[in-house]
Amino acid sequence: MRIGVDAMGGDLAPAEQVAGALAARELLTEDDRIVLYGRQGEIVEHLKVAGDWSERIAVVDCPEMIGMSEPPVEALRAKQNSSLVRLAQAHRSGEVDAMISAGNTGACVAAAQMHLRRLAGVHRPGIAIIVPTFHGPVVLCDVGANVNCRPLHLLQYGVMAGIYLNRVAGVEAPRVGLMSIGEEDTKGNALVRRTHELFRRRPEIRFVGNVEGRDLFRNSCEVVVCEGFVGNVCLKLMEGLAEGLFKALARELAQQTEGAFAMKARLALGALAARYDYSEYGGAPLLGVNGICIICHGSSNARAIYNAIRVSREFATQGVNERITTELTQNAGMGE
Amino acid sequence: MRIGVDAMGGDLAPAEQVAGALAARELLTEDDRIVLYGRQGEIVEHLKVAGDWSERIAVVDCPEMIGMSEPPVEALRAKQNSSLVRLAQAHRSGEVDAMISAGNTGACVAAAQMHLRRLAGVHRPGIAIIVPTFHGPVVLCDVGANVNCRPLHLLQYGVMAGIYLNRVAGVEAPRVGLMSIGEEDTKGNALVRRTHELFRRRPEIRFVGNVEGRDLFRNSCEVVVCEGFVGNVCLKLMEGLAEGLFKALARELAQQTEGAFAMKARLALGALAARYDYSEYGGAPLLGVNGICIICHGSSNARAIYNAIRVSREFATQGVNERITTELTQNAGMGE
Repeated sequence: MRIGVDAMGGDLAPAEQVAGALAARELLTEDDRIVLYGRQGEIVEHLKVAGDWSERIAVVDCPEMIGMSEPPVEALRAKQNSSLVRLAQAHRSGEVDAMISAGNTGACVAAAQMHLRRLAGVHRPGIAIIVPTFHGPVVLCDVGANVNCRPLHLLQYGVMAGIYLNRVAGVEAPRVGLMSIGEEDTKGNALVRRTHELFRRRPEIRFVGNVEGRDLFRNSCEVVVCEGFVGNVCLKLMEGLAEGLFKALARELAQQTEGAFAMKARLALGALAARYDYSEYGGAPLLGVNGICIICHGSSNARAIYNAIRVSREFATQGVNERITTELTQNAGMGE
Repeated sequence: MRIGVDAMGGDLAPAEQVAGALAARELLTEDDRIVLYGRQGEIVEHLKVAGDWSERIAVVDCPEMIGMSEPPVEALRAKQNSSLVRLAQAHRSGEVDAMISAGNTGACVAAAQMHLRRLAGVHRPGIAIIVPTFHGPVVLCDVGANVNCRPLHLLQYGVMAGIYLNRVAGVEAPRVGLMSIGEEDTKGNALVRRTHELFRRRPEIRFVGNVEGRDLFRNSCEVVVCEGFVGNVCLKLMEGLAEGLFKALARELAQQTEGAFAMKARLALGALAARYDYSEYGGAPLLGVNGICIICHGSSNARAIYNAIRVSREFATQGVNERITTELTQNAGMGE
């Protein structure tokens, strides 16, 4: 398997992208390769520190790069020689078998949709993020690919995210909840009510009904579906709140306890932060595209890139896309 | 001022509602009264423990009550003698000057809209909740009254929530952000893009542009507006995540540290939880109705009811509604 990494995408690129790739060599089998897309000179500078890297890693020189806040579609059109566009093209033509980027999320989604197209049966791809909770992983889909959701899109997110969680995290028969503002069937907006009916007609999906934001942390279900706008707000809110709570708690502990205790408390906080660290899950796949596209957080470090490479291998070896196609083409026509 | 409390609304009613009312007597001036609506016999049982309560508290007997998960509109129609309906009617007719309920939120919103009607100039009422953050209070509006928002509704939420925060929490010239999925003006869904334009045309509002979920905790603005569906998902998500994080942290601390330290750590956690306790802000006002309607969390305890009574007094003495009417009628016609 050949795994393509956008070495120029992300706040810490290319240093952390390269470091992650170097570390991930231990995951590879004889035939696997990591291919880094970006400015060759810069990338090689970072590779050199590891001695002979060329056995497992290749570099494809791309002079341009897309900035984190450029308008996605315009940037893709204007920068045909950017690391991201070249990577997406390489994935389409089969030069690589997966693409990983921590760069501009909108541009990455657009590039993947444009070049890879959709899997048979899929109406709209969605980004699935695994949220580490105290009861185990919960996957939230979509967190930002699709802001104009129709009921069938949400239904398919439930199916695709369930397969992903099952194959990559080993969760058996995941329960699917529909994000709403009250558990009663009749609550929510028009999209939620119509989607609810659609789920009810599909007994093969383990649908638990509407769930609320807090149910993510209450062992109510393992998959939560919502439209991209809502999911993205949730994702950023969780990030901000967790970050803020940890900071406030560290301050509170420092005030209330003397030196030795404060140290231990910081260790406990650190252990907890590590256990619920998003980067351990290695980015979020764009489910439904005809390929493997893993989108990483902009601030990804080497560990996150390492894990994204691991996840992209599991995604392939576990046959996530094959399973999605089988499921969605078998049950086509039962939609809206 | 006469403050009406739905003594039967909430998971812990009527015990905590009555206890909160008893404690809140200390807030009242000579002419103030608290009026409890609900089953007189039960309420008086709880009042009796405090000795002579009748100087500051009155009870209005209402034989019916509306359950937490009853369909709002149907329940209001069927239960004309419920504590909530009688309270809303009493507020309309001027028998009380404020209504407080920790019961069925949907029913409370519907009862207030039905009986109190809207303030002059207001298109749609919205629930405003104060989120305690590390940089001070941030108000989020709407968190569930209005799932079919139009741009003008969101604009008015910005104005109303700003006035509320200014008058009740003393925040000077609050900055207003529009919840979206990226800070760029062009990001978001159709509602957000149109609302953004509307805000830009109103220089008297201190609009900072689009914000993301994490900006609630990053001192980006003091008011965040969003449609009710998104706001309600956010509210419940914050609740669930904070609860879950505190639990996980308590467990982690217990594992990593010996007895004396674990105790201190628990004290620190407790202090933090108290500082960021929603109940300190005393419920969320339904802004824009022609009256004072304070909606409390279903699990409200006596402290939360006490604070809701405090807030309803401040709401009146600070002239929040008068200010809203002035602001919105002055600037009417500049809308969509």
